[in-house]
Amino acid sequence: MHRVKVRVVEDALDANTTIAAANRADFDRAGVTVVNLMSAPGAGKTSVLERVLGDLGDVRVGVLEGDVQGSLDADRLASLHVPVVQLNTDGGFGGECHLDANMVRSALPALPLDELDLLIVENVGNLVCPAEFRIGEDARVMVSSVAEGEDKPLKYPLMFRACELVLLNKIDLLPHVDFDVEHFLAHLDAVHPGVEHMAMSARTGEGLAAFRDWLVALGTREEVPA
Amino acid sequence: MHRVKVRVVEDALDANTTIAAANRADFDRAGVTVVNLMSAPGAGKTSVLERVLGDLGDVRVGVLEGDVQGSLDADRLASLHVPVVQLNTDGGFGGECHLDANMVRSALPALPLDELDLLIVENVGNLVCPAEFRIGEDARVMVSSVAEGEDKPLKYPLMFRACELVLLNKIDLLPHVDFDVEHFLAHLDAVHPGVEHMAMSARTGEGLAAFRDWLVALGTREEVPA
Repeated sequence: MHRVKVRVVEDALDANTTIAAANRADFDRAGVTVVNLMSAPGAGKTSVLERVLGDLGDVRVGVLEGDVQGSLDADRLASLHVPVVQLNTDGGFGGECHLDANMVRSALPALPLDELDLLIVENVGNLVCPAEFRIGEDARVMVSSVAEGEDKPLKYPLMFRACELVLLNKIDLLPHVDFDVEHFLAHLDAVHPGVEHMAMSARTGEGLAAFRDWLVALGTREEVPA
Repeated sequence: MHRVKVRVVEDALDANTTIAAANRADFDRAGVTVVNLMSAPGAGKTSVLERVLGDLGDVRVGVLEGDVQGSLDADRLASLHVPVVQLNTDGGFGGECHLDANMVRSALPALPLDELDLLIVENVGNLVCPAEFRIGEDARVMVSSVAEGEDKPLKYPLMFRACELVLLNKIDLLPHVDFDVEHFLAHLDAVHPGVEHMAMSARTGEGLAAFRDWLVALGTREEVPA
């Protein structure tokens, strides 16, 4: 009998890593670029998506909407006429505070991957655990609102360190809150030097074009990096 | 040999419940009433405490400050000259997104319980998991900010259902955000009928007297219910 010695590496013990890689292979086969969108509750993930998803040119986009319960955000996005699949973490997953690779995998059959260029996964609102669970995404984007305070990069460093792009939302509130953008950016630079960031207001529309352009560039690139 | 048959009940298997009860017994022996203060990141837990803890009359108050990392909030509260103990969840606990009974228990030796009437435990900023872990508290209070949106009770029902008091903070921002207080209260009533609530602004001071009175009443009551 031919015997194969399998070396067990630490990562292979991590079921999430294994399943994230399987998701990733499926996304690559379908040619879909995947964005994991994260934030605290109420930072404005859905509001930002409402503003940009209807205007991505030739990029065919879909959304996987993660919530503990309900479909309020999915209902809001449905009016944009993009495919939206709701994933609730309170059934069978024990009210989880984050999406993991297996939850995302359970939703893949409901997604028309072959008809998409870009998939946005809106994670559960939480600044801790979502940063610890890869789901097979190409890029991680987080939204931080000026109403949350300029200290957030220092208090939740893993989240700010885990993402490739930081969106500073609700800048229309700057005249009404104690938030110094320069302080925030200095804190951000302390935990994630050089990370790309954009300031915006989903309420007024200010600054959203840059994020829309960023998504279009991501959705139209030829090569999806492994 | 005398044999005792121990009936294993489901709750006894839950280590958190067991340890929460042990904490509770210690708090009762010391005559300390304990408040578990919860919210999303940036809702204003620390700002509210800064406004009220220096002005509780004869009530001797201490704070257990829970954060994933750092001591920013504890440093802010130290200027109030109340005992503050920092508890970080990133060391030995794996970067937990909530406090649990065992973490709180690990901090008890650092707290001068016999010199306190009231202990405020400021939980990690998160609207999901903190609601699932009792820590031996008498009351659970949550803070929701108008900047987070009026839909939050529907999206995080367990948190809004788990608490005895809801503080609606940052009402000074009401003229600048799309937030209808009546809608919020209707959503709150849908998930937790009749729950006590107070509107306030830690920034302007509006509405804080009611919460201060609530804390004083809690800290001066003769009997601590089991």
